[in-house]
Amino acid sequence: MRADIDRLMEERGVDCIFVRAAETEDTDRQYLTRGIHANATVVKKRGEDPILIVSGMEIDEAKKSGYPVMNMFDFDLANIWREHAGDGMAIQREFFRAIIEKLDIHGRVAFYGTAPVMSTFKFTKMVQEHFSDRIELFEDEDVTILTHARRSKDEEELALLRESGRRASLAMTRTREWLSTLHTDGEIVVDAENKPVTIGDVKRYVRLRLMELDMEDSEGMIFAMGRDAGVPHSRGEADQVLKTGQTIVFDLFPRPIGGGYYHDMTRTWSLGYATPEVQAAYDLVMHAFTQSLEALTLGKPTNTLQHLVCDIFEAYGHPTSRSQPATSSGYTHSLGHGIGLDVHEAPNMSHLTPDHVVFQVGDVLTIEPGLYYPEKGWGIRVEDTVYLHESGQVENLTDCSYELVIPLNEK
Amino acid sequence: MRADIDRLMEERGVDCIFVRAAETEDTDRQYLTRGIHANATVVKKRGEDPILIVSGMEIDEAKKSGYPVMNMFDFDLANIWREHAGDGMAIQREFFRAIIEKLDIHGRVAFYGTAPVMSTFKFTKMVQEHFSDRIELFEDEDVTILTHARRSKDEEELALLRESGRRASLAMTRTREWLSTLHTDGEIVVDAENKPVTIGDVKRYVRLRLMELDMEDSEGMIFAMGRDAGVPHSRGEADQVLKTGQTIVFDLFPRPIGGGYYHDMTRTWSLGYATPEVQAAYDLVMHAFTQSLEALTLGKPTNTLQHLVCDIFEAYGHPTSRSQPATSSGYTHSLGHGIGLDVHEAPNMSHLTPDHVVFQVGDVLTIEPGLYYPEKGWGIRVEDTVYLHESGQVENLTDCSYELVIPLNEK
Repeated sequence: MRADIDRLMEERGVDCIFVRAAETEDTDRQYLTRGIHANATVVKKRGEDPILIVSGMEIDEAKKSGYPVMNMFDFDLANIWREHAGDGMAIQREFFRAIIEKLDIHGRVAFYGTAPVMSTFKFTKMVQEHFSDRIELFEDEDVTILTHARRSKDEEELALLRESGRRASLAMTRTREWLSTLHTDGEIVVDAENKPVTIGDVKRYVRLRLMELDMEDSEGMIFAMGRDAGVPHSRGEADQVLKTGQTIVFDLFPRPIGGGYYHDMTRTWSLGYATPEVQAAYDLVMHAFTQSLEALTLGKPTNTLQHLVCDIFEAYGHPTSRSQPATSSGYTHSLGHGIGLDVHEAPNMSHLTPDHVVFQVGDVLTIEPGLYYPEKGWGIRVEDTVYLHESGQVENLTDCSYELVIPLNEK
Repeated sequence: MRADIDRLMEERGVDCIFVRAAETEDTDRQYLTRGIHANATVVKKRGEDPILIVSGMEIDEAKKSGYPVMNMFDFDLANIWREHAGDGMAIQREFFRAIIEKLDIHGRVAFYGTAPVMSTFKFTKMVQEHFSDRIELFEDEDVTILTHARRSKDEEELALLRESGRRASLAMTRTREWLSTLHTDGEIVVDAENKPVTIGDVKRYVRLRLMELDMEDSEGMIFAMGRDAGVPHSRGEADQVLKTGQTIVFDLFPRPIGGGYYHDMTRTWSLGYATPEVQAAYDLVMHAFTQSLEALTLGKPTNTLQHLVCDIFEAYGHPTSRSQPATSSGYTHSLGHGIGLDVHEAPNMSHLTPDHVVFQVGDVLTIEPGLYYPEKGWGIRVEDTVYLHESGQVENLTDCSYELVIPLNEK
């Protein structure tokens, strides 16, 4: 939680945090500044509020954070630009010098945010070459201070996560309801005008429902059928026509328009009917899914759930990423992931995640077992997003039918 | 252009390029791989095709590039994971070792893409500590090899840019047409049911029009009125009701759904009527706009256009970012920017841009002069996106009326 950042800085011996990110969208910056959309350099000394340094154009937006805002030109930028025109690294060096002098920054400094790799390489090299007398670049753990803080969601964030879950669930339920009004023409699925319905049509329908709910599909949903459903990251081909008796993996991970907390959910559907093979595999995935949810306990290593699910699938003869790491058949991925301002956040939930990574209060997690057999032409995944309360209660933020078959009428 | 990458690598003495980006969306990677949406590590040796290294889940998508694709597990990843479970940097180190050994990589290596700053810092430090016997990290110029190559768009890209321009223009024109069907109730703008129309309503309308055209507003459009129009990066407040006689800055920069080439255009509108002060300022902005377009010439420094526009505005008594670098009144920004897979690309078009940065064949540029007086309650900006042909012809990719006033009927 945001309230943990100073404690983590203290524990890891960090004196100051910089968020140095390109352009406007950066989730570390959004987190530190309570969601503002401004291209700010954020400087947070331990025990103090973050300071936002922005251009004149961004001051209004930056002030919405409630934190102190400074203008880039308070740091001699006009002179720096004039003196070093055309030398981007010299401008960055002198601007950085002005900031650390004016804000009196010393000691161990950690840089976060997301930026071009080449720019970060050159910038950190420059800081080491020119400012090592007063600044030591801090090499953070794999789970950085901000990543760790962001992992535990507080009450304010929970309210936003619930709302994203409500809207995503509604969009998926409406899509299911719409599909159930379609008809079959042989194995082809058609609309009231007898026009074949494509995956592109479905995605357009989903985006409209999301838009009505002020949500956006910023990362690109998965609606993949048949063989493609067997490839967990295939997004589905827009011109493919819906067919009966094929599995459809529909993985939706939208967020509020303009940024905010993601929701992530997956259902597997089979239109008209399901083959016995698919129905049996689906029942097994649902079994693994409900077993995982039941076993989800505060303080337990996150790897225990992945082991549980691998045990279940392997007992039924399916290869898993534990039994055959490079497999592209069977259960080919980890059980889930944390989620928040990014779709993928801490914690990891692989069987290789070390034991000290345990489920903790405020975790928001996806639980998403699946079975994939592209060579047999099908794939199955079921996914909900849940919140872990202090009481140990697992609150499910997803609400949509788990029924595999969506019955259709013959035309 | 893509065809220039090997020459630029030769000129700058680079033996190999890595794109090492987080998650799926990275425009350097998209450029190098012709638009695939896979979480690939891309390795390109000079004179050879890029190789995409992906997980099994991403192989199908990666193959769409037409380039060689390798599985992460071809690089001993299963053993590396097992041996170094929980130590992210050790895993990265050994995976990198396996890649450079298997693909026989030596010499000067440049890293591109966009990634978390802390991760890049630790990774580049690790490479220097462990692989300096065979690899030298290349410190590229401000305009990197990929940034430079991406700047000049080829015929294939021009076709995509034209199409984005056509669709963005259509969405804006339809919005203008819709606004012209509204009515006034005093100074308030209302719909057919006499309901006041808000900025949130307009943005929803625009998003629907974009969606019909398979475009998305991934970066968040600007529709800012009155004082907010005077703050170039204010996005507009959703609950604000449209009023007559106020300037509206409508800056739209969408891209095709799922990624592709952006278009960027701005119009300033005043509903019902415009005040004489605003009309005069608008005419001056249009003058600066048309003068810039006429002066746009292959081989000229990009700063010449900014100087021209500053000359015009200053002659009429307006402060500019040249005369008063920290001003938040008058002409407060640069004339424009390159655009492509990112909204902002090379070249820069500031008066501080050095003379050696000249307009060149294949440039795609925004031209966007403006005047801003938040304290007077108005702002004005007009922006088109243009393409520079080899013949010197400036092709305007934007097509929407420049009329300031949108006449309304009284209710």
